[in-house]
Amino acid sequence: MDPLLREARVHRLPMSSPDDTSAIETLVEQGKIDPKAVVAVLGKTEGNGCVNDFTRGYAVQSLRFLFGRYMEPADLDRICMVMSGGTEGALSPHWIVLEALPATGVTQTPALALGVHVTEDFAPVEIGRMAQVTKVADGVRKAMVQAGISDPKDVHFVQIKCPLLTAERVRAAGGAHAVATADTLRSMGLSRGASALGVAVALGEIDETALSDTAIGDDLSLYSTRASCSAGVELMGCEILVMGMSDMWSGPLTIGHALMRDALDIDPIRETLSNLGISAPGQFPEETRERVTAVLVKAEASKSGHARGFRHTMLDDSDISSTRHARGFVAGVLAGLIGQTELFVSGGAEHQGPDGGGPCAVIGRRSDP
Amino acid sequence: MDPLLREARVHRLPMSSPDDTSAIETLVEQGKIDPKAVVAVLGKTEGNGCVNDFTRGYAVQSLRFLFGRYMEPADLDRICMVMSGGTEGALSPHWIVLEALPATGVTQTPALALGVHVTEDFAPVEIGRMAQVTKVADGVRKAMVQAGISDPKDVHFVQIKCPLLTAERVRAAGGAHAVATADTLRSMGLSRGASALGVAVALGEIDETALSDTAIGDDLSLYSTRASCSAGVELMGCEILVMGMSDMWSGPLTIGHALMRDALDIDPIRETLSNLGISAPGQFPEETRERVTAVLVKAEASKSGHARGFRHTMLDDSDISSTRHARGFVAGVLAGLIGQTELFVSGGAEHQGPDGGGPCAVIGRRSDP
Amino acid sequence: MDPLLREARVHRLPMSSPDDTSAIETLVEQGKIDPKAVVAVLGKTEGNGCVNDFTRGYAVQSLRFLFGRYMEPADLDRICMVMSGGTEGALSPHWIVLEALPATGVTQTPALALGVHVTEDFAPVEIGRMAQVTKVADGVRKAMVQAGISDPKDVHFVQIKCPLLTAERVRAAGGAHAVATADTLRSMGLSRGASALGVAVALGEIDETALSDTAIGDDLSLYSTRASCSAGVELMGCEILVMGMSDMWSGPLTIGHALMRDALDIDPIRETLSNLGISAPGQFPEETRERVTAVLVKAEASKSGHARGFRHTMLDDSDISSTRHARGFVAGVLAGLIGQTELFVSGGAEHQGPDGGGPCAVIGRRSDP
Amino acid sequence: MDPLLREARVHRLPMSSPDDTSAIETLVEQGKIDPKAVVAVLGKTEGNGCVNDFTRGYAVQSLRFLFGRYMEPADLDRICMVMSGGTEGALSPHWIVLEALPATGVTQTPALALGVHVTEDFAPVEIGRMAQVTKVADGVRKAMVQAGISDPKDVHFVQIKCPLLTAERVRAAGGAHAVATADTLRSMGLSRGASALGVAVALGEIDETALSDTAIGDDLSLYSTRASCSAGVELMGCEILVMGMSDMWSGPLTIGHALMRDALDIDPIRETLSNLGISAPGQFPEETRERVTAVLVKAEASKSGHARGFRHTMLDDSDISSTRHARGFVAGVLAGLIGQTELFVSGGAEHQGPDGGGPCAVIGRRSDP
Repeated sequence: MDPLLREARVHRLPMSSPDDTSAIETLVEQGKIDPKAVVAVLGKTEGNGCVNDFTRGYAVQSLRFLFGRYMEPADLDRICMVMSGGTEGALSPHWIVLEALPATGVTQTPALALGVHVTEDFAPVEIGRMAQVTKVADGVRKAMVQAGISDPKDVHFVQIKCPLLTAERVRAAGGAHAVATADTLRSMGLSRGASALGVAVALGEIDETALSDTAIGDDLSLYSTRASCSAGVELMGCEILVMGMSDMWSGPLTIGHALMRDALDIDPIRETLSNLGISAPGQFPEETRERVTAVLVKAEASKSGHARGFRHTMLDDSDISSTRHARGFVAGVLAGLIGQTELFVSGGAEHQGPDGGGPCAVIGRRSDP
Repeated sequence: MDPLLREARVHRLPMSSPDDTSAIETLVEQGKIDPKAVVAVLGKTEGNGCVNDFTRGYAVQSLRFLFGRYMEPADLDRICMVMSGGTEGALSPHWIVLEALPATGVTQTPALALGVHVTEDFAPVEIGRMAQVTKVADGVRKAMVQAGISDPKDVHFVQIKCPLLTAERVRAAGGAHAVATADTLRSMGLSRGASALGVAVALGEIDETALSDTAIGDDLSLYSTRASCSAGVELMGCEILVMGMSDMWSGPLTIGHALMRDALDIDPIRETLSNLGISAPGQFPEETRERVTAVLVKAEASKSGHARGFRHTMLDDSDISSTRHARGFVAGVLAGLIGQTELFVSGGAEHQGPDGGGPCAVIGRRSDP
Repeated sequence: MDPLLREARVHRLPMSSPDDTSAIETLVEQGKIDPKAVVAVLGKTEGNGCVNDFTRGYAVQSLRFLFGRYMEPADLDRICMVMSGGTEGALSPHWIVLEALPATGVTQTPALALGVHVTEDFAPVEIGRMAQVTKVADGVRKAMVQAGISDPKDVHFVQIKCPLLTAERVRAAGGAHAVATADTLRSMGLSRGASALGVAVALGEIDETALSDTAIGDDLSLYSTRASCSAGVELMGCEILVMGMSDMWSGPLTIGHALMRDALDIDPIRETLSNLGISAPGQFPEETRERVTAVLVKAEASKSGHARGFRHTMLDDSDISSTRHARGFVAGVLAGLIGQTELFVSGGAEHQGPDGGGPCAVIGRRSDP
Repeated sequence: MDPLLREARVHRLPMSSPDDTSAIETLVEQGKIDPKAVVAVLGKTEGNGCVNDFTRGYAVQSLRFLFGRYMEPADLDRICMVMSGGTEGALSPHWIVLEALPATGVTQTPALALGVHVTEDFAPVEIGRMAQVTKVADGVRKAMVQAGISDPKDVHFVQIKCPLLTAERVRAAGGAHAVATADTLRSMGLSRGASALGVAVALGEIDETALSDTAIGDDLSLYSTRASCSAGVELMGCEILVMGMSDMWSGPLTIGHALMRDALDIDPIRETLSNLGISAPGQFPEETRERVTAVLVKAEASKSGHARGFRHTMLDDSDISSTRHARGFVAGVLAGLIGQTELFVSGGAEHQGPDGGGPCAVIGRRSDP
């Protein structure tokens, strides 16, 4: 076997609270996860997914505790940790641990390929603006190189964790006039949007010259079909995880993507899964469902206030953020097909798919040869 | 045509706010709704669906305003008005107006049959207890007679609006010791549960002697497969709407029911629709979808804290009531199949289906002969 | 007694739900309220005080029901009904009914004077912009004339009910670009702010030429010391109630105002009450408290993120709107002094007092001569 | 100076997020806090203060990180860490660090005395029941001995952190029937109540024989005037901190307590402060306010649904927990007197003071001799 060939391993594991890393620890002890091979950990944590969601930082602190026992602090910083808050509806909090190892067994190429990059910290004034777009685009390109992907069309998903503004940061930046917005909840949207447009630029979906500060968060006709961005209070730069297919990677895992045009649009996902060889009439029975390793999707309330011509109330609800409404609903749409609830549904899809829709990635396991 | 034969008409209409009855008014003016033929109006309103949801009372007051222009006050009280608060996720607020008219056109029997009954007011001490069970069972039997249904197995859904306790009512009753619970949110669950057990008794699903005050809200193995109960602050008795199939009714509308065993369990509904002659692979395309006149379903968070073995966080979320989480999620599960969002998803399924699941009724239109 | 002399009567009455007008009805039946003399009804209702607060519309519909029994529809429209949602903390929902009658008894001038004006409806594009400022300023001047107040310094409070944008209205206006903001919650702030600046212009606190669309919601150094504005979904124009002191009015009631510089700033209110002859060391005992007929105050979270140098978390809380936090807290500050909880604390004080503070008006009863 | 004499030091310090221990770290580095002398850290963190408030666990994890750099793990467990979630209204998140050192300077006795005790873990079935009462009473007695307090009347406050039930723990215990309640939010109240009754037993306020499982959470006439209990998901035993006055302690700090009879009842606190030599007419000016080292108080919504005869809506609000309402309101009541917002207002006062009221402790600094 080609000694340069790599293989991705992906583990989807339950968490009973944001600091519960026991399921990961158990696999490490059993030799099924090699901490030094871990390139990224995604976490769906049970906070509100909005500004004051500290479950994300708590989960990251807990992961660093765990992995810190196996490596030097410098190596720890290398692991991309993307926490997405919000397990509305029946969504189940979980970890997705992604490893990169030398390939073993039969050669199965192309296969799931991974690349990560962590940008430098942004200044508060850069958040939600072109400076962020440019820096993210540059980071995505670096992560593609690392993943051994040269053609942007082989990139199926780019998961990004990006910063937000707090009242404190706005003040530090010199007040409301200095920043893209002083509304902290709104800053999450602008940061996600700028990150997504950075992905679109890197993947050749949009030309950077077509963008400007004012288009961010505003011209929703501009979007990436493969970006998924989460904003969190616990970082000031971006952590970028590129996932795609590459001949430089082997193994049983494959990835595909689909675009939901609105919050109900399940058929494109059904079709993408079918293309990966995973299908069934109606809801997936257990044996089919188990070949679906991970589902990653973005959800949002359409700014039009409607879905397929019917009014929704998500944007007018001052008790529950529209991002929470959207996650719970899209979770149901997906669960109705897949048949389980460990789904990485992330809220806030600004510039990530069309208004009210969102990109979806599916990591599947090939059926045994 | 048999002059004794009746026909049910069902209109699903949008509302832009709880006091927006304009869509109903338009059909009345066009002669498509006869106010004197209206037996019930269901409303899915955009409140929180919990204790302090005044959108239900506001909608009822608005409906009474409207219909009051066409009839005497006494006749107004005859119309069963069941408002269910909560349009989480992409759910769309809507009215379902049900009319009973002399049958016209070709005879198509059996067809959708309707019966209503309004009980007397309960005392606060009766809410959530056997007194409520007995009175509801009696009311269901009366509504069945009115619907021309003698065999309980022809009843496909019993929609009930029942009261709840407020701090004020608990005080009036003499304090916490006098009532089933002093926790107002919990009182909604006990009232829904007692109503559902009343339905189960009337339909012969459970023997009344097997029940007791302590079983209500507690022994979840006891349930009706066809009850749907909503609690609201705006009434002190129960409004009961029985829907089923009867040879005494004719017309293009039919009804069937399915039982969701958990919040993801969409396949029984797919099958029931198929039995009504409404089916498609994947999500329903527009022409199929339009034959689904109304979907009525109960949603709740399983008290086990799990769905298909995966932990959910609905019961531990102190920011959002579990009923709101469950409605938004189940709405997504249904919308993924049906392809639209005017779905009557009602929260709190105590004794309405098994823990975490719930009954579902579908009113469909026969394809043109 | 001068037959041209008028007298204001003010009744503060409890409500058990937004549709409970029974306390008003009782006084009408007892001849203590003359429906034809009512010029305004303020209501503190138990909704969330934000976009989807339907308790305001429900209360107005219920008031119109009640008063409609005593007058022609045209006269009904003359009564200014300002509902303010949100009874956070121990705040108690209540009505404040204001009547204007011919003066009786001993002449006591100057006394509390009332004037009302209802503007025409605004277009969605006007909300939160200079068009609203100008129309409100004009309306305040008309209400002053009605109140018999010529000197703006005799105006102690201007209570305004103004409209907001919903997703529906934004769409009707042609989308996000056409309106001041597409964020519905934010539209409430801009509408309140534009109304308050209209008051400031009318009272000579700010020169209209110093204002512009961009200053609204932005330059917080511009504010009125006597404006109190509430936004509600149930109207599209402004209802304006001017309260002040005038020699053309007689009677036992007087009014004064104070400016809270921040959310804790109770001493100016203590001083204003003392100037009205109402004072006590510590919290007011019952006999003092009963001379405080009504307390009207605006509350908001300071945009600085701090109060007296200490960080607050109101702007970073994505579960509870900062307006709800601010109302509950300021209610406590006031209740600690006054000793009761029927306080008209209204949220969102944009351009109403300095950042984080707000105007306060107190209607007191002179001690018996 | 007597070498056996001890001195308490108390530092009130800001936190910018639950993991921000920098203010403590700075004082440690400056030699103003000796980590080995720290007996307890109280933290007012910015979560919802309810079941899914992970800011408490996050803060504890962060404190352990910090102090772990200065001591052995075993010594770390000795520090009592009581986090109370919820900074509603203008409340400011803060730490209160309590140290016990050998006394220095002039002898000033009696002075503030501290004692801590950590109980063993409880089984889920013990939570909210007599087993918890007994174990807490025993722990309080041990902490009193440690504080050098023999007469219960010298105890002015007992701060306790106690566990709660989650859906997971209920399941582990064998289901709803095995535990005191399966309602997780309600379990917080029962645990706080059982802890408070334990304090009452230890301080001789109530005879243990007068108590039973059924009285817990039910007979609100039974209460301690000096207990303050917070429930958190992050522990399964109780951490007990006793504060009082003792001749075995010297120094400038003193402590007193007051009982609020309802949520507005500020005068008893004004009087207690006055007894400590801290007073001013109206709100405290800066120099007075700075002598108030810490204010600790319990807040709750009265179960009667009323405060001084006026209805409140806290128990009927299904969007915001009544504990959040009560904290924000009582914070305002206190801030109106004290003039700042770093107040340790803790929610849920079951058996801690009368219904709707709560105990309050004030740590003050003697004026310079």
